[in-house]
Amino acid sequence: MTKAQLKNRIDVANKQRKADLVIRNASIVNVFTKTLTTGDVAISDGIIVGIGDYKGVKEIDATGKFLAPGLIDAHVHIESSMVTPQQFSQVVLPHGVTTVIADPHEIANVSGTNGLEFMLMDAEATLLDIQFMLPSCVPATSFENAGACLAAEDLVPFMRRDGVLGLAEVMDFPAVLRGDEAMLDKLLLNRQIDGHAAGLTENDINVYGTAGILTDHECVTKEEMMMRLERGMYVMLREGSVAKNLLALLEGVTEQNAHRCLFCTDDKHLDDMIEEGSVDYNVRTAIKQGIHPITAISMGSFNAAQCFGLHQKGAIAPGYDADLLLLDDLEELTIAEVYKDGQLVAQNGRYVGTLQEKSDTATVKDTVRIAELSKNSFQIPASGSTKAHIIGINPNNLITEHLMQEAPVVDGFFVSDTEKDLLKIAVIERHWATGNIGLGIVHGFGLKNGAIATTVAHDSHNIIAVGTTDRDIKTAAEALENLKGGLVIIQDGKVLASLPLAIAGLMSEEPFDVVFEQLKVLDESLKLIGAPTHFNAFLTLSFLSLPVIPKLKLTDCGLFDVASFQHIPVAVIEE
Amino acid sequence: MTKAQLKNRIDVANKQRKADLVIRNASIVNVFTKTLTTGDVAISDGIIVGIGDYKGVKEIDATGKFLAPGLIDAHVHIESSMVTPQQFSQVVLPHGVTTVIADPHEIANVSGTNGLEFMLMDAEATLLDIQFMLPSCVPATSFENAGACLAAEDLVPFMRRDGVLGLAEVMDFPAVLRGDEAMLDKLLLNRQIDGHAAGLTENDINVYGTAGILTDHECVTKEEMMMRLERGMYVMLREGSVAKNLLALLEGVTEQNAHRCLFCTDDKHLDDMIEEGSVDYNVRTAIKQGIHPITAISMGSFNAAQCFGLHQKGAIAPGYDADLLLLDDLEELTIAEVYKDGQLVAQNGRYVGTLQEKSDTATVKDTVRIAELSKNSFQIPASGSTKAHIIGINPNNLITEHLMQEAPVVDGFFVSDTEKDLLKIAVIERHWATGNIGLGIVHGFGLKNGAIATTVAHDSHNIIAVGTTDRDIKTAAEALENLKGGLVIIQDGKVLASLPLAIAGLMSEEPFDVVFEQLKVLDESLKLIGAPTHFNAFLTLSFLSLPVIPKLKLTDCGLFDVASFQHIPVAVIEE
Repeated sequence: MTKAQLKNRIDVANKQRKADLVIRNASIVNVFTKTLTTGDVAISDGIIVGIGDYKGVKEIDATGKFLAPGLIDAHVHIESSMVTPQQFSQVVLPHGVTTVIADPHEIANVSGTNGLEFMLMDAEATLLDIQFMLPSCVPATSFENAGACLAAEDLVPFMRRDGVLGLAEVMDFPAVLRGDEAMLDKLLLNRQIDGHAAGLTENDINVYGTAGILTDHECVTKEEMMMRLERGMYVMLREGSVAKNLLALLEGVTEQNAHRCLFCTDDKHLDDMIEEGSVDYNVRTAIKQGIHPITAISMGSFNAAQCFGLHQKGAIAPGYDADLLLLDDLEELTIAEVYKDGQLVAQNGRYVGTLQEKSDTATVKDTVRIAELSKNSFQIPASGSTKAHIIGINPNNLITEHLMQEAPVVDGFFVSDTEKDLLKIAVIERHWATGNIGLGIVHGFGLKNGAIATTVAHDSHNIIAVGTTDRDIKTAAEALENLKGGLVIIQDGKVLASLPLAIAGLMSEEPFDVVFEQLKVLDESLKLIGAPTHFNAFLTLSFLSLPVIPKLKLTDCGLFDVASFQHIPVAVIEE
Repeated sequence: MTKAQLKNRIDVANKQRKADLVIRNASIVNVFTKTLTTGDVAISDGIIVGIGDYKGVKEIDATGKFLAPGLIDAHVHIESSMVTPQQFSQVVLPHGVTTVIADPHEIANVSGTNGLEFMLMDAEATLLDIQFMLPSCVPATSFENAGACLAAEDLVPFMRRDGVLGLAEVMDFPAVLRGDEAMLDKLLLNRQIDGHAAGLTENDINVYGTAGILTDHECVTKEEMMMRLERGMYVMLREGSVAKNLLALLEGVTEQNAHRCLFCTDDKHLDDMIEEGSVDYNVRTAIKQGIHPITAISMGSFNAAQCFGLHQKGAIAPGYDADLLLLDDLEELTIAEVYKDGQLVAQNGRYVGTLQEKSDTATVKDTVRIAELSKNSFQIPASGSTKAHIIGINPNNLITEHLMQEAPVVDGFFVSDTEKDLLKIAVIERHWATGNIGLGIVHGFGLKNGAIATTVAHDSHNIIAVGTTDRDIKTAAEALENLKGGLVIIQDGKVLASLPLAIAGLMSEEPFDVVFEQLKVLDESLKLIGAPTHFNAFLTLSFLSLPVIPKLKLTDCGLFDVASFQHIPVAVIEE
């Protein structure tokens, strides 16, 4: 802020000059007093400069309406929307989300610092306020191969950049517990630190707190939430496309502890955001579940601002950014208009803000490089056993089951069996063409023929494929190489449908509405190969390679048992 | 924190090594969930590293007791205690205050940057955590002469120092409203800013908020408090020696808005702190008035930490400073033991911490320089009128009344009249020996003979004297020059009692218990000259020179009418 700007704002606050915009007669959601108050809200230069009795160059009569602070998504991987920050911005602003705390963890795992640069650059071109936490775990674990490795020293120059708040979700808990040098270096960068405390015990949470880790978005039970809140962690109530923890956690929210509760989406698919919403959905659901509307809105705005030290956000008061929602109904959170920095950016669910030039994507394209595949690349030796460690999927949940059961063996190798719903799954390293392929068997996808594959495979984003035949899996992987990343559906050795994700194999270069249509086609095509419709097969697949979430996962280095934190063979060898 | 420290703390949190101290079986005041919880509190290296089941080198059984976070005084002028930070520390720690946000405004007005340096240096030698806000208004106004002038550029090097949080109470509201360059420079230093919004209207508060001013400790009514809270200001509920706003403001505190309410003492005299307490008194009073004990303790600890971004303070959780109070009783806030950074520093109201060497005071002594006084120095011309503008004091209140009434005139000059309790009052510039003397008439002191004078005279700390004769006023001022600052009581042209304040004329070089005894002697001596006992004459006197508080005040430049914000003559000239 310049001196002239400050002087001008003071003059407007003091009624020496008209405000740019005055919103009159609304019931104002006051997060400080937790009451509804009244008064004209005067905006100058994108900032709220007064609540009282004001005149404006533009004036809006909001009689009968409610004015709430813009919402904040406390933790989101924009890449999971499969569109660029610019496109993402146009999707979430109409849902009342005016600020997000983004962790560019996905693109960093593919493109390293080039990925960070791209996200920061594209974020600059959005009207949405995108604040960044820098990925702390690239690669996520030492049990997989990612496209990059980011040490503390790589993060230092980014930490100084505008819009960078700190260190994103520390998920390598064993590294913290052991006090690994590289991890301690990151923890000592002296910035805010997000956690990722999936399944951690009381003892582990004590360690996390001691290490300065402030938040957790991985609670699944009320009891986990209470234990973290009591130890000073902010808890983010997450509702994403796969991980849906909101209803369970809302049961633990009280008027007394709500000040430490925030909302996030973490990973939410484009279609879900368009159809269901972003954190506006969390707020709406909280109200439906009996949380006071003002408390719920505070959780979705002010509390996140407090947590991340965004002192000008999350409230309607002089000196705060004019990020505002005009609501037709408070309880339903019916968003009529969205203002960002005092500008109207969305109306009745449609983005009406300015559009910018596309950002240059040169440094984050052509990221799919695999070694040549043969028809034998996907053979899983049964090693004399007919019993296998099998990944059992839980629809719409990141946590898998670790099954041990009989699986069909042909010529000494495990094979897919559509009758028993035991399908072969493969993770194919795609950053360095190392030829690494991790193989396993998965139960629950229910495909009847063909295969599906994607370069969106958390967190290293190798190619992950599941299929009814080795041939279709191979075809799927090769199709993704040709596409330079994306999602494919294979039937009878041919591409049935695809969604190209040219940016790091994670994000499309197309506008969000085009991608939305492509996704619909994919959804329809999934039915043709027998995929069930009660969960999203691609999304579920994309998390099967995430070795920080229980119980049994698959990386390019093989099957991974999260409980023992080590790789294991597929065949169960009984002694 | 070094890497080795962090590693060690993690190891203790993870039970690989014993904690330094474990406090067992206490009911823990949890400010996050607003509940009482249980568990061993493990401390290592001055930091809480775990709550659960721990072993320690030292272990304390706190069965039946309560463990609360150390208290935080959100705004205090240490100088008002009349002892050094080291001595102040020994007084407040036994009252459970482990952190204070200090504004060295008083010494800065006398000694400028030397004063700031002294306070920072002496604060280093205390076990108390003293965080500083830098004085924003030195001099407080342009209507008086202080010993120094601090511009934004003078503050910049201090802003970078450890323990400096921001800009202290901005009290020159007209300068903000006008957008004065020098004030805008300070507001743009880009740090946290405290306010001082005495009597400000809704419009003014909009201006303050727009200017980034975050707190106010000058509310006197519940309505003022609500208006500030609604506009995003933190409100400090103040209970000092003179300004006592606690009871009135507690009526406005709700469970919903308490998160924006803090406690402070602002200016509290040594004897009051010893006998009544510091912000522990505020907490105790709040509980007595019906505020939930955990809410009241949060207001006195966590809320202040949140306001000032002290992210490791105000709560009992892993990663937080081990600043702890062991309470025998929660409702009564009976403080049995105080731990600072995990060390026992007070027990049953007595300081038991370490003692340091006295700091060097050379740069902040010999600060009293006055021009020679004559017997005519204190004459107030009646200018043909017999009616005068008279300062009416309100005992224990900073606000004075502006009286206009007949006053005795002899030989064309107004004179003191003990019958009518109209006494002459003088402010004598004492920094540069300019010879400036401001004169007036005051009602309410009730002295029967003699005079009192002090170099503690907010905010410029010139000599302020009130007396029954010009001779005694002159003797008082000269006595203070000889003492090099302090408090004096004069009777029959002689010093009856005195308290030397060698440091900037504000603080004693003696230990607090010696000063306490000296104050008792002063109090007794006041009775000998007829001073009333229901209020503190010296304290009340010391605020009569503060031109930012209504209604009629006196500076070295003359009588000051706060309503019209200008100097006025004593005589009322009717036209």
